[in-house]
Amino acid sequence: MKRRQFLKVAAVGAATTAVAAPAIAQSSPQIRWRLTSGFPKSLDTIYGTAELIAKYVSDMTDGRFVIQPFGAGEIIPGLESVDAVSRGTVEMSHTAAFYNFGRDPTFGLATSVPFLMGQRSQNAWLYQGGGNGIIQDFFNAASIVAFPAGNTGTQMGGWFRREIRTLEDMRGLRMRIGGFSGRVIQRVGVVPQQLAGGDIYPALERGTIDAGEWVGAYDDEKLGFQRVAPFYYYPGWQEGSSVLHLMTNQAKWNELPAGYKAILEAAAAYGNSQMMAMYDARNAAALRRLVGAGTQLRPFPTEVLDGIYREAIALYAEVSAQNAPFKRMYDSAVAFRNEFYLYNQISDYSFDTYMMRAIRQRT
Amino acid sequence: MKRRQFLKVAAVGAATTAVAAPAIAQSSPQIRWRLTSGFPKSLDTIYGTAELIAKYVSDMTDGRFVIQPFGAGEIIPGLESVDAVSRGTVEMSHTAAFYNFGRDPTFGLATSVPFLMGQRSQNAWLYQGGGNGIIQDFFNAASIVAFPAGNTGTQMGGWFRREIRTLEDMRGLRMRIGGFSGRVIQRVGVVPQQLAGGDIYPALERGTIDAGEWVGAYDDEKLGFQRVAPFYYYPGWQEGSSVLHLMTNQAKWNELPAGYKAILEAAAAYGNSQMMAMYDARNAAALRRLVGAGTQLRPFPTEVLDGIYREAIALYAEVSAQNAPFKRMYDSAVAFRNEFYLYNQISDYSFDTYMMRAIRQRT
Repeated sequence: MKRRQFLKVAAVGAATTAVAAPAIAQSSPQIRWRLTSGFPKSLDTIYGTAELIAKYVSDMTDGRFVIQPFGAGEIIPGLESVDAVSRGTVEMSHTAAFYNFGRDPTFGLATSVPFLMGQRSQNAWLYQGGGNGIIQDFFNAASIVAFPAGNTGTQMGGWFRREIRTLEDMRGLRMRIGGFSGRVIQRVGVVPQQLAGGDIYPALERGTIDAGEWVGAYDDEKLGFQRVAPFYYYPGWQEGSSVLHLMTNQAKWNELPAGYKAILEAAAAYGNSQMMAMYDARNAAALRRLVGAGTQLRPFPTEVLDGIYREAIALYAEVSAQNAPFKRMYDSAVAFRNEFYLYNQISDYSFDTYMMRAIRQRT
Repeated sequence: MKRRQFLKVAAVGAATTAVAAPAIAQSSPQIRWRLTSGFPKSLDTIYGTAELIAKYVSDMTDGRFVIQPFGAGEIIPGLESVDAVSRGTVEMSHTAAFYNFGRDPTFGLATSVPFLMGQRSQNAWLYQGGGNGIIQDFFNAASIVAFPAGNTGTQMGGWFRREIRTLEDMRGLRMRIGGFSGRVIQRVGVVPQQLAGGDIYPALERGTIDAGEWVGAYDDEKLGFQRVAPFYYYPGWQEGSSVLHLMTNQAKWNELPAGYKAILEAAAAYGNSQMMAMYDARNAAALRRLVGAGTQLRPFPTEVLDGIYREAIALYAEVSAQNAPFKRMYDSAVAFRNEFYLYNQISDYSFDTYMMRAIRQRT
């Protein structure tokens, strides 16, 4: 051992003894990060989950790891939240990967694509079916480390100014519907429009669009669509389940001590459960208020769903043929979902079917 | 200030400066706890979740908070796991509260009772519908602090040696079915038997029981019921959703630093998601194997479910009339569930219905 090296080692040893617990101090540094949400603060469900996650992390580290959340547009525009983390402009985002759909449709698939799966199967695929690993492999190229951190469940199919009775009724419809869903529905003749949440109401009011989808009853009610479009369609074929991700810039992630990494992962998982629970606790009351105020609920005719479904499947085949990461993620998700439904139809789905009938008969 | 007091304060101040970060050291003490599972190690889903939670806690604390899990019977018999935490014999348990059903049926309700709700509504009720608070109020009397930490989803209705076609066919049936479910099914003439998991197979083989329920396809397959009872019924009306809890002795909980409390809570929530995902990822393949080996799947006739349902509702009214904590918990859960289904039937349930049909038509 060279003398210089020996001195260094000895010095470290001495410090360890003197400072009592330097490993602890080093593994729990004071850190302050910014998190940009892909959504406005008015969405207390989605944005509220980012706040919850920040609180969990602070509580778990005795206030040493502080994450300050910002609403969409405060420091980064909502649609640029994924890119901002990728570039390292901010350390973190709580957002939907599909905002980067234009760069690669695989980002859309990481959040939700039409007719894919529901929340329960998606969680199972992510946590226990290889989904998180496949998505992380894809995110690596964007220098993002991500964990599932919220879910909307099945969304509503959107607000329509006039009734839809046939697939033909969809033709020529100008509808606010984004990303992958827009590309799918275009194939049955709808003219998809990309509009930010706040722009949907005035467009529906002026009649520059004929229909628009946002999230579900609780979030939609806040934007007031019930006042400008009478028909509220279900189910949301376009988002059977929509995953929010807690994204961290890869370089920033690498700087974190191992304990903080584990804390972020657990906080994201807790937030994932909480966001679904928030929607489940709030959507029914909102739906009651909407219907009480005159909103007319309508199921999409099967012919319409079938028509869109056929086009979705055709599009997935086309994209898969030229995009290997998309194909890998899609094939894995679909195989998992099919198996999931095989069992779920006799277990939970069967139980739910019985319970819904029993409750209707007694009340 | 007295001189002795001043000296004490000064000494603390000096220590603070010298030791660099004593607040950190104090808030992250080295702790080693034992956790007794209510279930055997062979249930890699349930027991595996206890192991996962222990791992999360260790990872989040850089190995300073170590939880050592033990299988049922290793240090505490499975059925006594709740009591052991209540008395402080062990610091923690990962178990089903309903093992204490005999002491108070409200323990049963905290886990699952017949015809209550599914996993998604139960999670939403627990996290965002006041459920966790109501359950904690009840657990306070047993000196237990608890968090949801796993779910089986809707279980299977059990294995039967002969087919069930009418409610009358249930009369006189000797069935292994525990706790609250036993009390319910007794009212339609079934003779409920309390047997540990490992005793069900020999009892079915010898014909000392006619039927028995355990969990679902993945767990049931391991116990080999398919070799001694040909008919496998669904859905598991007795457990539409069954919650595992991470329970901590109240006095031990109070000793924990705030950061460790937050870490336990988040680890439990992460485990809660993971256990459901494990079942969802494993049940379908097990069901395929069972059916491939000759198991005959049967839905319970509606007449049978209706008959048991009526008795369950009557029993809940009787228990509620004399047990205020039960009534409070039950009324809260039922009101939440009814609202949940109102929305779910048009959102997720409607999406799932369409998807199951579409997948069947394409494959």
